Amino acid sequence: MKRTHAYSAASATAPLAHFTLDRRDPLPNDVQIEILYCGVCHSDIHQARNEWQNTIYPCVPGHEIVGRVTAVGSHVTKFKVGDTAAVGCMVDSCRICPSCAAGNEQLCDQFPIFTYNGPDKHSGGVTYGGYSDAIVVDEAFVLRVPENLDLAATAPLLCAGITTYSPLRQWGVKAGQKVGIVGLGGLGHMGLKFAHAFGAHTVLFTTSPGKAEDAKRLGADEVVLSKNADEMNAHASSFDFILDAVSADHDINAYLNLLKADGAVVLVGAPEKPLAVAAFPLLMKRRRLAGSLIGGIAETQEMLDFCGEHNITSDIEMIPIQKINEAYDRVLKSDVKYRFVIDMASLKG
Amino acid sequence: MKRTHAYSAASATAPLAHFTLDRRDPLPNDVQIEILYCGVCHSDIHQARNEWQNTIYPCVPGHEIVGRVTAVGSHVTKFKVGDTAAVGCMVDSCRICPSCAAGNEQLCDQFPIFTYNGPDKHSGGVTYGGYSDAIVVDEAFVLRVPENLDLAATAPLLCAGITTYSPLRQWGVKAGQKVGIVGLGGLGHMGLKFAHAFGAHTVLFTTSPGKAEDAKRLGADEVVLSKNADEMNAHASSFDFILDAVSADHDINAYLNLLKADGAVVLVGAPEKPLAVAAFPLLMKRRRLAGSLIGGIAETQEMLDFCGEHNITSDIEMIPIQKINEAYDRVLKSDVKYRFVIDMASLKG
Repeated sequence: MKRTHAYSAASATAPLAHFTLDRRDPLPNDVQIEILYCGVCHSDIHQARNEWQNTIYPCVPGHEIVGRVTAVGSHVTKFKVGDTAAVGCMVDSCRICPSCAAGNEQLCDQFPIFTYNGPDKHSGGVTYGGYSDAIVVDEAFVLRVPENLDLAATAPLLCAGITTYSPLRQWGVKAGQKVGIVGLGGLGHMGLKFAHAFGAHTVLFTTSPGKAEDAKRLGADEVVLSKNADEMNAHASSFDFILDAVSADHDINAYLNLLKADGAVVLVGAPEKPLAVAAFPLLMKRRRLAGSLIGGIAETQEMLDFCGEHNITSDIEMIPIQKINEAYDRVLKSDVKYRFVIDMASLKG
Repeated sequence: MKRTHAYSAASATAPLAHFTLDRRDPLPNDVQIEILYCGVCHSDIHQARNEWQNTIYPCVPGHEIVGRVTAVGSHVTKFKVGDTAAVGCMVDSCRICPSCAAGNEQLCDQFPIFTYNGPDKHSGGVTYGGYSDAIVVDEAFVLRVPENLDLAATAPLLCAGITTYSPLRQWGVKAGQKVGIVGLGGLGHMGLKFAHAFGAHTVLFTTSPGKAEDAKRLGADEVVLSKNADEMNAHASSFDFILDAVSADHDINAYLNLLKADGAVVLVGAPEKPLAVAAFPLLMKRRRLAGSLIGGIAETQEMLDFCGEHNITSDIEMIPIQKINEAYDRVLKSDVKYRFVIDMASLKG
């Protein structure tokens, strides 16, 4: 058993604070990782604050993990001590259902085992995430990191990256298409980078005029202020695909109406209130509204490899773990460009 | 010019009554058709009563037309005098936009010219539909009818048939799949017949226990009472595809939750109020919500040919045109199994 330092929430209202836990000794298929960097995802806040009404405390968030392999089980073939490795939102799944068999572990019929607050089938209790100095994960759920990427800026690829890469790939976004990204936050800024890298004419929708310049730097060919009805109407029925990364309540029909025939709006944010969807815009052009959730392990590796080839990482702001509560407050105010990443060396200090 | 007898609405509140109009002499590409039968679609009522706020009066509804060719223009190659012919919801489109080029005239960027209440580009004014004894249509929008089909029962295929056939085909419904049909009316009963003919395990969702027997006769393998939460939950995450033919307000999330990963609910009914769509059911299984609208001309011909091969027609109740107002009242009460068809001989009486 490895004594591990971490930061945890003791309740829905307690600030995150230092905590120690024991990680299992590596089983034959396990990889033990010293965590170097962990991204801060809005889901971490939802979970820590019990906003999904299912949190088991103490809760150690964190599912954008990059680190160094410090030990491997006897059957491990993909990793050796000293390798760079990464872990995303899942640490296991049933591996036999049709979704798992198709490489979509995130859609597992038995539900994937999430990196935190999931049932820990080895040690009992719940899984503890990446706000810690070490983690032990079955190698089937550990990713390789291309050598040329900055490790800290790679961490957010494990959730924000795959969450936006996967739907753009699933829906076949490519050169010659017109693609929209709604919202410029942690997800949206990665969506912009990928849509641009895939060669699409990429349009950012935002409510903030101040974000236009940054959006163009990140890959937007055009920026549309979504509150300006004239600007929106000028794009009616012209989009092949729109990735909607907004978690706040918003008018989804305004985006459905921008799709050409057979186009799709895909949600990766999860607004709390149901969306009011008018049937006519869907019928008249056979438009589609869908959701997407992270991606499978093979696709996550494909995404990391793509990022290596195209030198894509997240724009980040590094923090010591002692600033995590402040960082949460700033995430809630969308005051981050575009992802906080915890420098885990701070946990040793 | 051919003096044509018809039934029209003079205003949103006037009952339909006898009316005469002139059809153009056939142009080189035109087919002149003596109408034998015309189905009664709920859209006819919406249009006659100006429920879409765009009706130009007098309004002659009817877009499920079957008849006999009585004259052809000099360039017509597909039809000759004496042939059986059919006309559906469209009589023309721009023919050059990407949707038209792809055979999806119903999604035409310039809007298709609908069979009634559309801009008549030859005679000016609006197009007049099938509640009449003759119609003149460009041969590109005239369909061939398989010889073995009952002509009266074929008429509803031109709207109810293609409206359900097209989405089942687009989304690849086939043997081995579990497919739901929501609502057993004019559309739903055709959806059942097609899903069954395509070999899918077909489940009808209804609010009416009394419809179970008829549903099974029409092709349902199972019938689920949608108001029974236990019955619904037993089917959670198990459907490949659900065709939703309900125009009344209803809980769409109850159906989205029945889809397996990557499954789709496709709307062919158009509820007036926006649907309240929860984001989570879409995200968690990458589920899809889409719309569909009739079908293209080539696909409509494919559907008619499929019906000929499988001997599929609509279940109908025949009426003389003098009973059309009564029929409208009964459609609004869902009191028809499952489509009224006007015997146009009654117009000559």
